[in-house]
Order: sequence, then C-alpha cells, then structure tokens
Amino acid sequence: MASRVNDQSQASRNGLKGKVLTLDTMNPCVRRVEYAVRGPIVHRALELEQELRQGVKKPFTEVIRANIGDAQAMGQRPITFFRQVLALCVYPKLLSSPDFPEDVKRRAERILQACGGQSLGAYTISSGIQLIREDVAQYIERRDGGIPADPNNIFLSTGASDAIVTVLKLLVAGDGRARTGVLIPIPQYPLYSAALAELDAVQVDYYLDEERAWSLDIAELRRALCQARDRCCPRVLCVINPGNPTGQVQTRECIEAVIRFAFEEGLFLMADEVYQDNVYAEGSQFHSFKKVLTEMGPPYATQQELASFHSVSKGYMGECVQAQRVVVVKPELVENFPDHCHGSTVPDPLPRPASTHALPCRCGFRGGYVEVVNMDAEVQKQMAKLMSVRLCPPVPGQALLDMVVSPPAPSEPSFKQFQAERQEVLAELAAKAKLTEQVFNEAPGIRCNPVQGAMYSFPRVQLPPRAVQRAQELGLAPDMFFCLRLLEETGICVVPGSGFGQQEGTYHFRMTILPPIEKLRLLLEKLRHFHAKFTKEYS
Amino acid sequence: MASRVNDQSQASRNGLKGKVLTLDTMNPCVRRVEYAVRGPIVHRALELEQELRQGVKKPFTEVIRANIGDAQAMGQRPITFFRQVLALCVYPKLLSSPDFPEDVKRRAERILQACGGQSLGAYTISSGIQLIREDVAQYIERRDGGIPADPNNIFLSTGASDAIVTVLKLLVAGDGRARTGVLIPIPQYPLYSAALAELDAVQVDYYLDEERAWSLDIAELRRALCQARDRCCPRVLCVINPGNPTGQVQTRECIEAVIRFAFEEGLFLMADEVYQDNVYAEGSQFHSFKKVLTEMGPPYATQQELASFHSVSKGYMGECVQAQRVVVVKPELVENFPDHCHGSTVPDPLPRPASTHALPCRCGFRGGYVEVVNMDAEVQKQMAKLMSVRLCPPVPGQALLDMVVSPPAPSEPSFKQFQAERQEVLAELAAKAKLTEQVFNEAPGIRCNPVQGAMYSFPRVQLPPRAVQRAQELGLAPDMFFCLRLLEETGICVVPGSGFGQQEGTYHFRMTILPPIEKLRLLLEKLRHFHAKFTKEYS
Repeated sequence: MASRVNDQSQASRNGLKGKVLTLDTMNPCVRRVEYAVRGPIVHRALELEQELRQGVKKPFTEVIRANIGDAQAMGQRPITFFRQVLALCVYPKLLSSPDFPEDVKRRAERILQACGGQSLGAYTISSGIQLIREDVAQYIERRDGGIPADPNNIFLSTGASDAIVTVLKLLVAGDGRARTGVLIPIPQYPLYSAALAELDAVQVDYYLDEERAWSLDIAELRRALCQARDRCCPRVLCVINPGNPTGQVQTRECIEAVIRFAFEEGLFLMADEVYQDNVYAEGSQFHSFKKVLTEMGPPYATQQELASFHSVSKGYMGECVQAQRVVVVKPELVENFPDHCHGSTVPDPLPRPASTHALPCRCGFRGGYVEVVNMDAEVQKQMAKLMSVRLCPPVPGQALLDMVVSPPAPSEPSFKQFQAERQEVLAELAAKAKLTEQVFNEAPGIRCNPVQGAMYSFPRVQLPPRAVQRAQELGLAPDMFFCLRLLEETGICVVPGSGFGQQEGTYHFRMTILPPIEKLRLLLEKLRHFHAKFTKEYS
Repeated sequence: MASRVNDQSQASRNGLKGKVLTLDTMNPCVRRVEYAVRGPIVHRALELEQELRQGVKKPFTEVIRANIGDAQAMGQRPITFFRQVLALCVYPKLLSSPDFPEDVKRRAERILQACGGQSLGAYTISSGIQLIREDVAQYIERRDGGIPADPNNIFLSTGASDAIVTVLKLLVAGDGRARTGVLIPIPQYPLYSAALAELDAVQVDYYLDEERAWSLDIAELRRALCQARDRCCPRVLCVINPGNPTGQVQTRECIEAVIRFAFEEGLFLMADEVYQDNVYAEGSQFHSFKKVLTEMGPPYATQQELASFHSVSKGYMGECVQAQRVVVVKPELVENFPDHCHGSTVPDPLPRPASTHALPCRCGFRGGYVEVVNMDAEVQKQMAKLMSVRLCPPVPGQALLDMVVSPPAPSEPSFKQFQAERQEVLAELAAKAKLTEQVFNEAPGIRCNPVQGAMYSFPRVQLPPRAVQRAQELGLAPDMFFCLRLLEETGICVVPGSGFGQQEGTYHFRMTILPPIEKLRLLLEKLRHFHAKFTKEYS
C-alpha cells in the first residue's frame, strides 16, 4: 500500500495519474455480465460489413444477420394500420387529411386525448397511460377467457427487459444477507444471466430436455433447487414460454406442475411470455401462467406470486408487439378467422383450435408490460416507486402497444387491409419454421427440434474432436469457433449456443427464422454445406 | 428460526403461506430509494384530479402541475419541423405527399436510410445509430468551438437518467469492497440519491451556497470529501449545470476549479448538462466541462475522466430535446441570429453574446446521450457491453435527437417557420423566468434566487415555528406539510425542498416556470397569497 502511495506521488509530480476507473477498480458484477446476442460475433459482423463497404474482397457479398429477432431489419414490411395511427399521433395536423381512414383517426384521437397536453411528447404517469393499461387489461381478459385483469396490476415498460430487471431488483437480497438464488432454464435468453450477474444474485441452472423437444421436467427443477440451497437462498423461478432460444411451447400439464412446485417450494414465479403470440406447431397451444394459476383455484389462485411479461418489441406481425395472438389452423383461413383481440368486447365464439400461429415483430419502439398477480400490496407500491425514478416508458412504444392489444375490429374500414397484411406475414412465417426444421434435419451432424413457437431455431451441431481441440487452443468455446468460421466464410451471423447455456459437450447455435424465405433457403443450404466442409476439414 | 419453520409448516397444512416477497424480505436498497418528483404529493394530485372529475367540490377547479418539467403537458405546442420529420419516419408513404416541405422529406429519408430495413421499427446497434452519433459529435464540435468529438465516445440512451445510472453502475464497488462515495450537490435532482440508494453507494453531500445564487464552492467540496473518507471510498464527483432544481449557471472559473479539484483528488467527473440549452440570465453563459477541460490543456485535457450527459427529454423548444442551444440577446433578435446548431459545418462567426436563452421541451420520447472523455478503453468496452443487454434505446427518441442536433439550415424551406416557432417559445420563457423571480421576491417571507437557467425556480420560504411543530406532530417534513396544504387549498402542485435536500432549518419548494404566462401569473399570486395566509394561521 505504501509503495502504491509513493508511486502515486511520483506520478503526480510527473503530472501522470492512473485512471480512476479501470478494469481492476470497476464494479466486478458488471465485468461478469455476458451478453452473447450482441457479443463478439456481432461485433465481428459489423466489422465485416464495414470492410465490404470499403471494397475488401470476401467470399460473400453481404452479411446476413440471423442472430437477432428483428423482423423489420430483415425486410418485413410494417403493418399499415399501426404506422398510420402512430403518424397521426406524432403529427396531429394529419387528422384533417383525407388520406387516412376514419378508424385510424378515431384511434389516434383516443390515444392523444389520454396524453398530457394531448401530445405524445408529454411525460405520462410512471406506470404508463391509464387508458392503455385498461386496454391491456381487456386484452388479457379476452386472452384468458374472461379471467379478470386489473389495470392497477399492469405496469408499462421500455420493452420486456426493463420490467424483468425491475422485478429481479426487488427480489435480490442486498445488505449482506444470503444471496438470492434465481432458477433459470438452460438454454436461456442471456438477459437473465446478464441481469443476475449485474445484481449479484446467484444463477441456478435447470436444464431443459433436448431429447424431449426442450420440455421442462419437474424432477430436474427439484434437483437444481436442492443443489442450490447450500450456496444461496433460492426465491425465484423463471420460465420462458414459448422458449427463447429453444422455441418449445409448454403444455398445460407442465405449467400446472411448475405452479405447484413453485408454491410448495415458496418461489416467486416470473413468466417470460413475450412470444405468446408466436406459436407455430400443430398440437401446440399457448397457455398463460395467469390463466392456469387462476383455474387451479385456491391456494394457487389466491396466493402464488407471479409476474408475467410481454413486449411490444417482439410479438407478431413485424411490429415489435408482443401482445396479440393470432389463431389459425391454416394460413388460408386467417382472413375469415375471428380474433379475440379485436376491439369488440364480444368473446371469441369459437373453441380454441388445435394449432395456433403467430408472428415476429418490430423492435425499435421498445414497449412492453408486466402484470403482477398476488403481489404484496406494499411491495407493489415499492415497485411503482422504483419505476417512477425513470419517469415513464417512451410514449410512442406505449401508443404502439395500445394498437396491438386492440387492432381494427371487423366492422372498421382498416380491418380488411390489416387482415391481409397479417395473413401474408403469417403464411410466410409458418413456412419458414417448417423449412428450417426440414433442411437442418436432412443434414448429417445437425439435429433440430421442431420450432413450435417464438422465432428461433436452436439446432445441435456435431463438431469433430479436432475442431474442439483447435478451438481450445485458440481459447474459444467450440461453437464460438464454429460460428466465427461460418461468419468469416459465408457472411452468416448466428449466435453460438454457449452464449445461452447447453449441456456440457453439446454444441448449438441460435438462428432466427426471419429472413425472407428465398434468402432463408439459401442461408440454410449454405450453412449445411459449411458444416459438412468444416466437419471434413477437422476429421 | 425453528419456530418460523413450525409456523410455516402449520401454515402449509392450512394451505396458507406467507408471501415470498414482502417489505421485510425485499431488497432493502430499493426500499431506501426515494423520489420526490413523483412522490406522495404527486400521488395526492392525481387523486384530487379524479375527485374533481367525479364532481367533488374543491376550493379550485383544476390541479396545476408545476411539479415536473413537462412543457407539452402545459400546453406548449410542439415544433412543426420535428413532428413532420418524425411522422414521415413512422409512415414513409407520406414521403410522396405534397403537403410536406422538401427538407422534411430529405431529413426523414436520411434517418430511414440509417435504420435497419429502413424502418424505425428495427433494433439499432446498442450505442445508437451510427449516423446520429456522428451528427451528435458534429453538434458537440460546433458547441465547443471546434474541439473534436469522436462518435465512438458517444452512447445514445433512453433519456439522460438511463445513461447516468449506467455510468454509476460501472463506478460502484460491489463484492464487499469499501463502498464507493459519490459527491452530489445539495439541493440535487433526486435521480442521484435514488440511484445511489439502489446501487448501495454512499451519497456524499456538498452544499451549494444559496446566499451566492447557489454557487459551487471548492472549500465546501473539500470539506465534504474529507469528512467522507472515513466511511467510504469517494471516487465520483457529480455536478449539475445548469442546476436542477436550483437554476444557477456555473462560471467558467468555477468549472476550472472543479476540474482541478477532481484531478488532484482522483475523482471521476460526471457532468449533468441536460439543461445546457436553457440559459436565461444576462451575464450567464453555459460552458461545457468537455470544452473547459480541453482548453485547460494537459494533464487535465489528457487524463481527467469525464462523462457528460444530455437528454432529448428536456432541452429546448418544447420538444424534449436537450441538445440544442439558442443564443439570443433579445427575443426579437432570434430570427436573424446565426445558430451554431444549423446543419452547416461553418463555425458560428459571431462572438458568444452576453446572454443566452433557451427553452423547455418534450419528454415522452425519451432520448439522450452520454459523451465519455479519457475513459479507459477497456472500461469503455465494458460500458458498451452493459448497454447492449438492453438491446437499444428507443428509435423514435434517437430520430428526434438527430433533428434537434441538426435543425433546418437558413437555406432550407422549413427554416422560417422553425425560427418563428422557436422565437415564440423563447420570448415567453424568458418572460416567465423573470416574472417568477419578481413575484416571489416581492412576497414577505419568500426569497428566490434568479432563474439563470434550466426551467425551475427553487424559492426559500419562511415557515412559522408553530407550522414546523404541527408538521412534526404529523410526521411530515415542514415543507411537505406546506406543499400538501397548498395543494389541498389551491390545486397547485409543487415539490417540497426536502425531496432535493437543503440546509437544515431552511425550507424550499421546486416549481417549474412552464405554465402559460397568464396561468403562471395567477399561480404565483395564489401561491404568495396562500403563503401569507399560512404564515398568519400559524403565527
């Protein structure tokens, strides 16, 4: 210590000082944060794009970013109705233009009237505009077959990530108490591992069963919980349904079992349901934790604490919105299919079909919400207080969320175009999910579970032992080595499975199904071809 | 402990369980967070508004929210140019409409071309759209008389709050090391106290000198630092300039002294400059820390670490944007006055006049940025990583920031209307700052420093000892008691000084200068009258 002081004095005399903030002195929790979805591979992809622009010769002409679920960057057109309403909200002079349908104008006026000074530019109350929270509550009620939702239990947020971190903040221990353990699925969406590292909570991994289409097994939950008890105080169970990156959709039985488990073990439930509107596979259906919990009756319905998250940044129809379900059996039926999300309050008269179907999104608007169930009233006040420090979620995202939870009704002028645009996206996405699974499973050494929901595939790749060895020599995870080589040789950007977590000795990558179908076909073929070449090279 | 287990088993047999998350088990750091700007007084204001709507009789007909700097909620009209460009970005079909000027279209096209898939709905890179960061860098260069700014040192954010918390996160200790001390001004903007409580850092108060127009005194900084050393490791010095809630503007000499102090004491500097475009008083001028630091030369210019914050949520011209300065001597000169912010790269040919002038804003869009100077390169990578976990700042806010840092140039068709709208707002704001100071200082028992900048007054009120005693009986801070009574009897909502911090035994409140001038006059008169009545009642 004394010598450091001397060094400093010396440095000071020379006018040279060390930095206040260095890798050694910075918050070690932040250092431990990792976030693969925007990690080194994406950084390299950006560099390659720049090199291409500068005319550097590459074995490819463009970088295809299949690393992130960003529909509009992939060329998907926005839904006209959403954009028209938003344009009118932004520039209300257009309300007198003859070029916009009447229902678009009514909708914009309704949103503007709910804003301070009738302007999107005013702050809103911290939990979000009251009218929009009421619309979200009605959407949830329709989704859950009439089970009531209280707008006071709904908090709007800047995308789902923001709300998830806020709830986690309440649950971590602080002040030198035993650290809070949080059970998360592996593979997981790395927001969870990143937030837990930052908040200095303990990540408790439970493994999804790849052999059974990434299903969630209660015995595995119990194993994880028991093993965690000696190193932390496990208090939270996170479930991602539909799965990200794994694309599975939980059965109702599974959700019931998870709720019973959480109740018995005294765990706070966090249900990440941001892909609830993106369910593709026949026989798969989305069940909300809120609905199942309520239908299970007491004590679960009355006591089990739950926070359920949605996001405008994902959801269906290329408009970054998570809050709308589209229910179809076959794409050609979409146009005629009644949708529980219409603004009308008439309940959906048809039974839920065997297959549901929904779509990707727009992400730049960053809207979302969390609904809390059975939360302690005092804690809920604390949550509202914490959210108020950031003043309010961005208002354009709030407005977009409102349109998504209450799209045009069949009687309204915008309905027909809205449905047509939706159908186009729907049909293509269903085809892309299928194509992805097919092409991968025809390739030797690649195996892909069905893409039941969300918008990613997470195929498993066999890597030859010599490739694994070479990666280790380079200090890289083997699947990172594979993905980096893939990027350098083909321009295809996917995220290595090690960024999401996977069983020791297995290797995966996450790839979105969002590129236009012809581009996706080419991409899948290139990928298959590259894997074969890579395997040969290291065999 | 054993008895608690028995209690739990018993409860379990009855199907009754305690909540996982209660006030006792929740994160104590979150419990300690306080945020007066949206605290109990605002809660009560909302209730009163609801009661008025329900027809409950009150001694007033409307609640006037003078608690928060939200120009558009106060009826200020948005700037046409900003809204037109944003509408075209949101709904690009309007690009072919004859109703929009050519420069608006060119601007929208330029922003869209910089977005993924040419859509605001796509994610952007985590630090924000490259083009916009380049435009911000050019804005900073013009502001600072040509001192270079590197787009790679600029990170866009969701309002300034988001960026401030991110930088603080890097600086806190974590892992059981000595807690980080952060020096903040008192009175302060309570984002700081809230963030420090949440991050479990130590708040080190230095007092601004009310007798000398809230100036910053180095001796007081030194006192605060010395006294803090035995309870924490002070590593950060925050300065808010122009002041919030205090409205003072630091002199260049003061800023130089602060920089020397930070350098000598090894402190990381955080300069909250979100009101840099809102400078009203004659003789006051904004100096950026970046410019002063650079002009001081080595070792300061080359070594002192600095993060400077701006926000689209505040700044000038009722459009929630912090990043544009308007320089005027008298309002009538505005139209002819060259502005360093114009898109042109020609430096401002005129000397900076003695008085600068600028305006409030639109807040719902939530855009902002931080520029880091002399930050360790590895730490800067860590900061980029941390920001990437939240994916990206909302894109509409990014687009708005771009327009604000490069408004129409004199040669462009939108220039004239833009200038006229700006002048209208400018003239009114200057008048309102003056009026506020005048009326308060004419009232016995109220004293108000000049509102040199930002958009708040922070007058000191004398409260009679019996009122103080009554407040204590009610368990309230005396100024909270005063503000609550004011709200109940007049409908005027202001924030008590205790929410910002003040010298023991002094009482203040923060009030915005944003209401329309006739309403403001009425409000000031009512306030003066209420204070007289209150004083009489408790004398």
